[in-house]
Amino acid sequence: MSGMTEVATARRSRITPEREAELYEAVLDLLREVGYDALTMDAVAARTKSSKATLYRQWGGKAELVAKAVRYQKPGAAIDETDTGSLRGDLHALTMRSDDCEMEQSSALMRGLAMAIHGNPDLLRAFKEHLIEPEMAGFRQVLQRAIDRGEVRADNPAIDFVMHMMIGGFAARSLIDEQPPTQTFLLSYIDAVVLPALCAPAS
Amino acid sequence: MSGMTEVATARRSRITPEREAELYEAVLDLLREVGYDALTMDAVAARTKSSKATLYRQWGGKAELVAKAVRYQKPGAAIDETDTGSLRGDLHALTMRSDDCEMEQSSALMRGLAMAIHGNPDLLRAFKEHLIEPEMAGFRQVLQRAIDRGEVRADNPAIDFVMHMMIGGFAARSLIDEQPPTQTFLLSYIDAVVLPALCAPAS
Repeated sequence: MSGMTEVATARRSRITPEREAELYEAVLDLLREVGYDALTMDAVAARTKSSKATLYRQWGGKAELVAKAVRYQKPGAAIDETDTGSLRGDLHALTMRSDDCEMEQSSALMRGLAMAIHGNPDLLRAFKEHLIEPEMAGFRQVLQRAIDRGEVRADNPAIDFVMHMMIGGFAARSLIDEQPPTQTFLLSYIDAVVLPALCAPAS
Repeated sequence: MSGMTEVATARRSRITPEREAELYEAVLDLLREVGYDALTMDAVAARTKSSKATLYRQWGGKAELVAKAVRYQKPGAAIDETDTGSLRGDLHALTMRSDDCEMEQSSALMRGLAMAIHGNPDLLRAFKEHLIEPEMAGFRQVLQRAIDRGEVRADNPAIDFVMHMMIGGFAARSLIDEQPPTQTFLLSYIDAVVLPALCAPAS
């Protein structure tokens, strides 16, 4: 009997993985469109044709729902596979993993969350763990191989700033140029900024 | 008589420049604290001890009030005065114009506006005209002198990305490192990234 009760409880409080994925996609879309502050549980309920009661029962609140949706983000192609034999080839390959449409979406998501993550430690953790850290891990591998090949000096201080440079190109593109970042833009930025900084000789 | 009516009208619909400055400072503070979406006219009225009616009569609405407040931002020390004789000296001097507290404030303001400027052309214009363009003008002067001195090749593609690099260091600092950008951080970033990219020899 106790076993049946558990099953019934689990059933009542669970939604299917497909439905969960649908909900997270809707939350991410809303985040890109209106940002965190303007995102309401009402809007999520309306767009996903679910009841607010279900949303609150399942996730507890907006912050938890958004953090889970960010966590749900699919990672790009496995980084391990990116090994072209040169730093330039690897950095270009990392960039080419996302098409222009995906980059525009990431850029919109970053914008939508920028303010919220500063007042919300859970969201900041989800953002770092699921969006920033996987990217950083990829860049670290690529850089280590470049150091092993002798393309980059192990003590080049620019190594610590790879993510700052990349996020800069990415985020400033829409701010300064009023255009979403594109593959073409990021490849020129890598050639003009990231590679010269990383491959600079000892000063 | 018609002259007296005009004076009376002007008096009724105007506030003193001191009061205006106070209001703009309060709006900028609120923007940094809660961001554009969560900023309400009620909060501005409460913080500045003014009536909402006055705010609406004077500015029309939130977007106009925020755009005016952004425009009101005092520019940093005149760029023309920054001429140390070397690119490194000039870039360091530009960075030193703002102390750590001012940098943290700019970084908070950028965060607070990032989402809003994408849905609000007036705000984007104010943001670019009064926060981005003056900075860019400063960097352009400094770079032109570096080109004239032969420190930077005139056809170095990194020249077009100076603001992207700087904004990257600035904005990514709080995202990745969870710390506000500081003078110390930005000076290392300039030495490790910006100068090697700008001074790279022809490839």
